[in-house]
Amino acid sequence: MNLLDATFARGPVSAGPGDPWLVALLEVEGALARAAARVGLVAATAAEEVSRVCADPTRLDLATVHAHAGDAGNPVPPLVRALRDAVGPYAAGAVHVGATSQDVVDTAAVLLARRGLQLISTDLGTAADACARLAADHRDDVLMGRTLLQQALPITAGFKAATWLAGLDGARTRIAPVVAGLPVQYGGAVGTLAASSGSGVDLRRELAVELGLTTTPVPWSTVRLPIADVAGVLGAVAGVVATIAVDVVLLAQTEVAEASEVSESRGGSSAMPHKSNPVAAISARACARRAPGLVATLYAAMEQEHERGAGTWHAEWPTLTDLLGTVGSAASWLTECLSSLRLDTDRMAATVTSAGDPQLAGALAEALTPALGAGAAHDAAAAAVREAATTARPLTDLVLARTDVDGAALVADGTPDVGEAGAQTDAALAAHVLADQGGAL
Amino acid sequence: MNLLDATFARGPVSAGPGDPWLVALLEVEGALARAAARVGLVAATAAEEVSRVCADPTRLDLATVHAHAGDAGNPVPPLVRALRDAVGPYAAGAVHVGATSQDVVDTAAVLLARRGLQLISTDLGTAADACARLAADHRDDVLMGRTLLQQALPITAGFKAATWLAGLDGARTRIAPVVAGLPVQYGGAVGTLAASSGSGVDLRRELAVELGLTTTPVPWSTVRLPIADVAGVLGAVAGVVATIAVDVVLLAQTEVAEASEVSESRGGSSAMPHKSNPVAAISARACARRAPGLVATLYAAMEQEHERGAGTWHAEWPTLTDLLGTVGSAASWLTECLSSLRLDTDRMAATVTSAGDPQLAGALAEALTPALGAGAAHDAAAAAVREAATTARPLTDLVLARTDVDGAALVADGTPDVGEAGAQTDAALAAHVLADQGGAL
Amino acid sequence: MNLLDATFARGPVSAGPGDPWLVALLEVEGALARAAARVGLVAATAAEEVSRVCADPTRLDLATVHAHAGDAGNPVPPLVRALRDAVGPYAAGAVHVGATSQDVVDTAAVLLARRGLQLISTDLGTAADACARLAADHRDDVLMGRTLLQQALPITAGFKAATWLAGLDGARTRIAPVVAGLPVQYGGAVGTLAASSGSGVDLRRELAVELGLTTTPVPWSTVRLPIADVAGVLGAVAGVVATIAVDVVLLAQTEVAEASEVSESRGGSSAMPHKSNPVAAISARACARRAPGLVATLYAAMEQEHERGAGTWHAEWPTLTDLLGTVGSAASWLTECLSSLRLDTDRMAATVTSAGDPQLAGALAEALTPALGAGAAHDAAAAAVREAATTARPLTDLVLARTDVDGAALVADGTPDVGEAGAQTDAALAAHVLADQGGAL
Amino acid sequence: MNLLDATFARGPVSAGPGDPWLVALLEVEGALARAAARVGLVAATAAEEVSRVCADPTRLDLATVHAHAGDAGNPVPPLVRALRDAVGPYAAGAVHVGATSQDVVDTAAVLLARRGLQLISTDLGTAADACARLAADHRDDVLMGRTLLQQALPITAGFKAATWLAGLDGARTRIAPVVAGLPVQYGGAVGTLAASSGSGVDLRRELAVELGLTTTPVPWSTVRLPIADVAGVLGAVAGVVATIAVDVVLLAQTEVAEASEVSESRGGSSAMPHKSNPVAAISARACARRAPGLVATLYAAMEQEHERGAGTWHAEWPTLTDLLGTVGSAASWLTECLSSLRLDTDRMAATVTSAGDPQLAGALAEALTPALGAGAAHDAAAAAVREAATTARPLTDLVLARTDVDGAALVADGTPDVGEAGAQTDAALAAHVLADQGGAL
Repeated sequence: MNLLDATFARGPVSAGPGDPWLVALLEVEGALARAAARVGLVAATAAEEVSRVCADPTRLDLATVHAHAGDAGNPVPPLVRALRDAVGPYAAGAVHVGATSQDVVDTAAVLLARRGLQLISTDLGTAADACARLAADHRDDVLMGRTLLQQALPITAGFKAATWLAGLDGARTRIAPVVAGLPVQYGGAVGTLAASSGSGVDLRRELAVELGLTTTPVPWSTVRLPIADVAGVLGAVAGVVATIAVDVVLLAQTEVAEASEVSESRGGSSAMPHKSNPVAAISARACARRAPGLVATLYAAMEQEHERGAGTWHAEWPTLTDLLGTVGSAASWLTECLSSLRLDTDRMAATVTSAGDPQLAGALAEALTPALGAGAAHDAAAAAVREAATTARPLTDLVLARTDVDGAALVADGTPDVGEAGAQTDAALAAHVLADQGGAL
Repeated sequence: MNLLDATFARGPVSAGPGDPWLVALLEVEGALARAAARVGLVAATAAEEVSRVCADPTRLDLATVHAHAGDAGNPVPPLVRALRDAVGPYAAGAVHVGATSQDVVDTAAVLLARRGLQLISTDLGTAADACARLAADHRDDVLMGRTLLQQALPITAGFKAATWLAGLDGARTRIAPVVAGLPVQYGGAVGTLAASSGSGVDLRRELAVELGLTTTPVPWSTVRLPIADVAGVLGAVAGVVATIAVDVVLLAQTEVAEASEVSESRGGSSAMPHKSNPVAAISARACARRAPGLVATLYAAMEQEHERGAGTWHAEWPTLTDLLGTVGSAASWLTECLSSLRLDTDRMAATVTSAGDPQLAGALAEALTPALGAGAAHDAAAAAVREAATTARPLTDLVLARTDVDGAALVADGTPDVGEAGAQTDAALAAHVLADQGGAL
Repeated sequence: MNLLDATFARGPVSAGPGDPWLVALLEVEGALARAAARVGLVAATAAEEVSRVCADPTRLDLATVHAHAGDAGNPVPPLVRALRDAVGPYAAGAVHVGATSQDVVDTAAVLLARRGLQLISTDLGTAADACARLAADHRDDVLMGRTLLQQALPITAGFKAATWLAGLDGARTRIAPVVAGLPVQYGGAVGTLAASSGSGVDLRRELAVELGLTTTPVPWSTVRLPIADVAGVLGAVAGVVATIAVDVVLLAQTEVAEASEVSESRGGSSAMPHKSNPVAAISARACARRAPGLVATLYAAMEQEHERGAGTWHAEWPTLTDLLGTVGSAASWLTECLSSLRLDTDRMAATVTSAGDPQLAGALAEALTPALGAGAAHDAAAAAVREAATTARPLTDLVLARTDVDGAALVADGTPDVGEAGAQTDAALAAHVLADQGGAL
Repeated sequence: MNLLDATFARGPVSAGPGDPWLVALLEVEGALARAAARVGLVAATAAEEVSRVCADPTRLDLATVHAHAGDAGNPVPPLVRALRDAVGPYAAGAVHVGATSQDVVDTAAVLLARRGLQLISTDLGTAADACARLAADHRDDVLMGRTLLQQALPITAGFKAATWLAGLDGARTRIAPVVAGLPVQYGGAVGTLAASSGSGVDLRRELAVELGLTTTPVPWSTVRLPIADVAGVLGAVAGVVATIAVDVVLLAQTEVAEASEVSESRGGSSAMPHKSNPVAAISARACARRAPGLVATLYAAMEQEHERGAGTWHAEWPTLTDLLGTVGSAASWLTECLSSLRLDTDRMAATVTSAGDPQLAGALAEALTPALGAGAAHDAAAAAVREAATTARPLTDLVLARTDVDGAALVADGTPDVGEAGAQTDAALAAHVLADQGGAL
């Protein structure tokens, strides 16, 4: 643990086993031995010994593995050698059967991606539940809607939470098929399965069964769509998280003060004792902001040469690792943010009340439309808003003074109109229930 | 048309209507009027007039629209004004019913994305068919497999084409659900449908029916998952195209000379009359290379403030337009490349024959394993390869001279072993048939 | 002109000649002919004829050039042919002397980059002057400083403008050496100058003189540092522009209302007549947001194969063109924004006054430090702030009620303390004068 | 150390102190105390004690610092508290004088960037020296030049190495001013230096002196040009490294075999004992490939809100850390690659000899030009090349058979013409000497 990780890393993805890649590579080697036994290429007892050692990395000479991890450009050759040494001569033949390094690295990457995506989806589900509660609790509490960061017309806090909810459920719904489709990699040196004694396709299928993965008609060594799937959905998750986080940051502004994170521990400032910063939202945004560049690296790395890329393949592993880590942290920070979020409904209502002018301007435009046409009516209403600002008179007074509309009726009709916010909120809540039932992870 | 577009732009996406955004925005406004009529908010005759004008942009004062396109940060306000002017006072009330600019821009973006993705998928399908033919024709023609750009062990040309095919079909398979899921945008100023007279949700549904789009429980104004879906799948397409393109470029190298583009017109050099460059592959790669950065911009733009982003939203439109254009061109260049691709099977076979040593080395290692163990056997075979190189003697001679293995048998067994390449090729071809039947666009 | 360009494209970079690449490529060919004459490789009269035709693209058969622009993967071969046809047999030998397509494309790219950077620098200079005026005019007008979007402690409006100014001057200062260092490209087919009759290095030097560019010891065909220089500085410009734009957007929020764009034409909304959006700032931000992804594409494209990249080189041209265009538009939108910016000093002052608590909390912490130590004093002040919030009592009252400090003195000392804001503002203004004198473009 | 780092991390940047950020943050706090003493704000003895503790992190309660590193969104508040506890009550007042967290984090980032850039520049210098040796040793050894991955015309191995050298020296030349310009950050809570008792500007200057950094007229808290400078130059370094690495990978292809890495330890394959992969070049490329996405993240993070960004600032730290690490590793892998690089001059010469046709075709075109004009001559030469290929006759025979040129003279003149390759190589070597003398790090 270093100071940067202590600051940003949050949640279960980052709290994984000491060396996630080591664990995942060995999990693949273990499953590979068992699959080889199932198709009759190695003895079951030998495969069991390999499997046992793979489950206990302390039995390997890891120092030597580390020392030689860079010799071949990937850590599998020294790991395989250490594994063979650890299992002894009898079981050594059951290690790495018919495989090439990429088979093990790619399948391990898939396992890490699956674990990460599942954990992230769980965190997103927690965040979605929090949003669902907010949407239900505040279904009819007015909140100023703001477009281009200007006050526009009222919505409800429930509607806003329903929008967040839709984003989170949308993200979960996209994670599920990616996880379900993650394929095993197994093709041997150049993908032909030539070292698998004619049982390669069978072994691939059994390996997939062992690990709960899918298979592909041909190896995907240079067809990096599974990595692209993971990259894309992580980018989407980051975007959803960042959007909610920035909403919280904006609503928590001192001048807006309609939302705040309530936390005993977080939010202080080294220089300013009076400040209470929405630290979880800020940290979620910080972690999410790292995603698009990493996603681009993975898409760019899809271009692989011949039967195995020379560097493009290798660039994937640390990038994917970082991407899972930072998006995982972003999701966890967001759950912290939402679980500690307090909405100030009084303040929200007061903002809407004091900002009745926009709605009144809209009503004025509508009232003038029959006589002037929509364009000129819009202009006339805008002119009235400008006059109110210039002369510092309430727009209400200006409207009441007009003779071309029933100003009193317009002003009287000034209760906040949130349209079909409630019905839409209910629809998002209903969809949330369905998302939980329908297989979102 | 400028010189850059003349050089790179290819295929149907780039050959769209003169101003694609204008056409798409008007298509949305026309459908919106019809949808408003269907839910009873405007007269059918008025909607028909709006619809007619929207289908004929020449009836609008486009110069004025252009002149004011930047006034509001988006082109919809002047377009709506011009549209109202063009339809006359009676139908003006049927224009832009209950809508905000973002409703029209986002739905237009979705229409452009759908059109682009469909055209791209068709091009990918053409490319996939070409690969399927190559896979069938060359199912058993040996080709040297190369990893890390080093000759490794033999595959078949059919197997390589099957791998390309798997990438193209995988890309098409991913496009289909994205297109099927593209949603309409309709929420009014702040998403509440407050200006839709209580019929907003109904109108949204009818608008979706008009345009063949889906609906969402709440507007996705700040939940940019549909844009992320499009970005992600375009990034994946670009990666698949680039991979095939780079394979062609590498196989076409003078020293390899196993593939070439055969074209009357393309491939010359201004300085070197003897050169024949694989221009279609190079151009496909060039166009694909632009994608990852554009994809990153779209993911980064997901972070939208409050009910409408201030600049983040706007950054999407030109980026999405460029991304569709460049990936569309990449796909079209690839179809040109593959339809003109000639594989030199004699050359391919000769390469494999002259490179029998790798396979022999592998066989030697295998033969030594029972006696030495896998690790030491591997080392001994590598030592033999080094000795052959150092002494400039054929590896065959060295193997024949060994007493610890049956060298003659090893050498005799030297026909190229392509393992289960054939079966896997067949599997990819079968999957291609299913992809065509199963809804790939 | 299409609708998207009408919306976003602004300023002189976008308003260039009809087909900037055509113009630039011909400018290079013209200069190349003159340089060849200067070193004696062609007749001066022939070079003059080439030069004349290059200055008048209408003399070329551009339709044919367009039709064949993609044949070789770059537009130079058909352009050279058209040029030779246009100048006639006598002068044809003075066309493209010793050159390869990349010589012309790269040098044209450099000319386009130079023109773009110079125009952008001019716009940044205009923006900087506007900031300098704001800094001088508002040197002592208090403004609330905000960190993490929370009110913190007061600054001055002049200090904020000085910070913007420092960014703009910093960007200009970085543009100048990039422009000054832009090199000519000239090496012939593979960089050896083998087709330049022994006068290649001399010709390169003369070509550089013709075009006002520098030379390099070897061609930079695959050493893309000049492109990286341009990309990097454009990315930096975009970041500076975006920062100022987002400040304006945030200060213009309805709840803050300390800044606004005052414009007759801009800022309306199609749905909400009362709104006045800071459209120039929003558009500047939108254009700037497109930069980082494009910059990444250019850095990624640096990886070029052998003596000329196969696709990586080509990916640069449209990307560089888009990057210059969007950053140029961002800079122009920013000048529009700043020239129309109105600061509401009364509102700014009122915000600071009503937010005296932060400063008081700081003073309390300082007063308690001798007795409690810095840590505990900080905690005690934070506790007082929390108590004030919880009990809805003014912090002033709580401080006056304390017996462990001289509360009256602390409260009396409550005039906004802006520290050395004035001196730093003056320093930035002085540096601005130096930047103008010292060669910022 | 985990398995991924063991595989990729190389060289001095990665081999830094255990927790580089902790060390750098404390170095800043120590210097800050000393600077505060120099301007008279704290006692020299107190500053000395702070300085002593900062040099020995074991004296701090780091577990508590870690536990609270995320509470404020940055690790400085708990670090300052731990530091105050560690120095005791007397010296506590000399800790963090007038500073805010960002002052310490930003200045620490600058120190880390400086250290990283200096180490990278040293590695690049080592690589440049290796290239210089190659350029001198192989100044006149012919090598086939290849454009678009097709054989083109001959160059020399020295000329290619000179091109690599120019890239490396160009990168170093760009690092030097970035390092020289790195500024200290010191402004207090909102940049006004209000907590520095009127000595803020003086203290900033002394702090800069302590740390060997520059100062700025105003804080750069939201003007992220120093970070952009570092990002840009690291992106450029990565591009230069990747270009050389990909050249080595391509020259090491089995079919080309003109270059190889000679290494006892590196390059084996887990599946193929006969292979010898250019692992250092591949790893250099892999590390360099991660850069563009990270660079884009840093440019995108320039957009900072008000007086301190909410998440955008925070996203910089891990990104900058990763970027320095991966570019540092790329540079170190490149030095390993170049120091073990063996060029096969015999093979290079044989390739050129067997590919004389291109040059002959060029000579033919030149000879035909007086009679036919340049365009038709080019076409006629291309036709001859095609005929040779179609009929499998040597181009030499076809040229000898022509009556429109002196074929014998053309064929006789067939020694490889490398133009001014030698003079340009010498120029790059001379520039290398100047770069070393002139301040490249």
